[in-house]
Amino acid sequence: MTYCVGLKLNEGLVLLSDTRTNAGMDHISTYRKMFFFEQPGERVIAIMTAGSLSVTQTALGRLQEAIEHPDADENSSIMCAPTMLQVATLIGHTLSQIRREIVGQCQDLSPQASASMIVGGQRRGGEMRLFLIYPEGNFIEATEDTPFLQIGEHKYGKPILDRVVRPDTSLADAQKAVLLSMDSTLRSNLSVGMPLDLAVIRKDDCKVAHHRRILEGDPGFMAMSAAWSAALRDSFVNVKI
Amino acid sequence: MTYCVGLKLNEGLVLLSDTRTNAGMDHISTYRKMFFFEQPGERVIAIMTAGSLSVTQTALGRLQEAIEHPDADENSSIMCAPTMLQVATLIGHTLSQIRREIVGQCQDLSPQASASMIVGGQRRGGEMRLFLIYPEGNFIEATEDTPFLQIGEHKYGKPILDRVVRPDTSLADAQKAVLLSMDSTLRSNLSVGMPLDLAVIRKDDCKVAHHRRILEGDPGFMAMSAAWSAALRDSFVNVKI
Repeated sequence: MTYCVGLKLNEGLVLLSDTRTNAGMDHISTYRKMFFFEQPGERVIAIMTAGSLSVTQTALGRLQEAIEHPDADENSSIMCAPTMLQVATLIGHTLSQIRREIVGQCQDLSPQASASMIVGGQRRGGEMRLFLIYPEGNFIEATEDTPFLQIGEHKYGKPILDRVVRPDTSLADAQKAVLLSMDSTLRSNLSVGMPLDLAVIRKDDCKVAHHRRILEGDPGFMAMSAAWSAALRDSFVNVKI
Repeated sequence: MTYCVGLKLNEGLVLLSDTRTNAGMDHISTYRKMFFFEQPGERVIAIMTAGSLSVTQTALGRLQEAIEHPDADENSSIMCAPTMLQVATLIGHTLSQIRREIVGQCQDLSPQASASMIVGGQRRGGEMRLFLIYPEGNFIEATEDTPFLQIGEHKYGKPILDRVVRPDTSLADAQKAVLLSMDSTLRSNLSVGMPLDLAVIRKDDCKVAHHRRILEGDPGFMAMSAAWSAALRDSFVNVKI
């Protein structure tokens, strides 16, 4: 499985993904699940992926080809689409088309070839937006009321987000929130694993402000995780029933 | 859905269940999911249920009938079975048989008629044990390494249990842990709802020491929930990244 989370805040977008993929418990690999398409100052699009790797890799490959060869059909490049809504529509269309192709190839093997994506970004002069794209290609958008979107193993890490994330959360606090949300997921579910990709996109910058890969044993992440565990245990001791 | 959790500790068993059932979002009801079979000092068996209500109610009805009319087949009464292992086997057999009957009745409607149970208890002179019974009737048991079992919407409330529950956790702390685990689940998932049933069975007592229904708006539960939220927010502020 996977865990990816995206936050849309007043100050910008905060994105975090793990890198574990598995085809059964005995076939575990590391694959990047966070991708950027960027023309700094003009347009930035970040995509995080969950689900069948053959679907997500092919979808990203096709999006990339369309960017490199937009002549055939200008409307097929996410770097040319006039709005973020049209970017999301284009990615949803690509995702759903590839899913149908792969399911068709596999015919009666009843494969679980399905994938979802979180897409966030901004073009110069436009709004910063964050979408969750379903396997069928339709999508929902983060709002003031629900400023975060999750794909993959989302349940373990949802309580902390429900409690602390609001549109006016600072980018620093938001990074802490998604890392703690991931920490809970990593502890409780083997199918989500290090390293992690953490990214920040500031509002109206139209570029990735900050992207960091957090490796297994990262001293900062380990210290934060240990401090959070200790704080939870202290809180637990102090709460009365 | 449902959330039920059972802890097997050195001092005894702690059990907590919600009461929400739903057949679609527009058909929500309250049903008890925690049941006791008790001959104080001799034998106590607690059952918590998740899944299709028609399966769990019929299974409990049939277990009750077998207790009331054990003459037909003495081996069919969970109050007569010589060990807790045989109690679990009997319940598993009943659960799986009813599931098959109901699925057979529904034939090609492809119903989701499946249910699981947590069964805990002790008979005089025997060991205190806690089992999770799968829809197929097979089961697993809580151990020193994994002293808790969950059924239903288990993911939201697992991180807190992973962090604080050990076999030597006191019964008071254990009640706090399951209530906080439930609190996280209630906040993040609408299909789990108040009121709650909380029970404690002390080791070697062979009776229910304590059973409490916690209603919506219970002042103690609300105070604990608010204190935990405040403690988490404080911890969040204090943890550094």
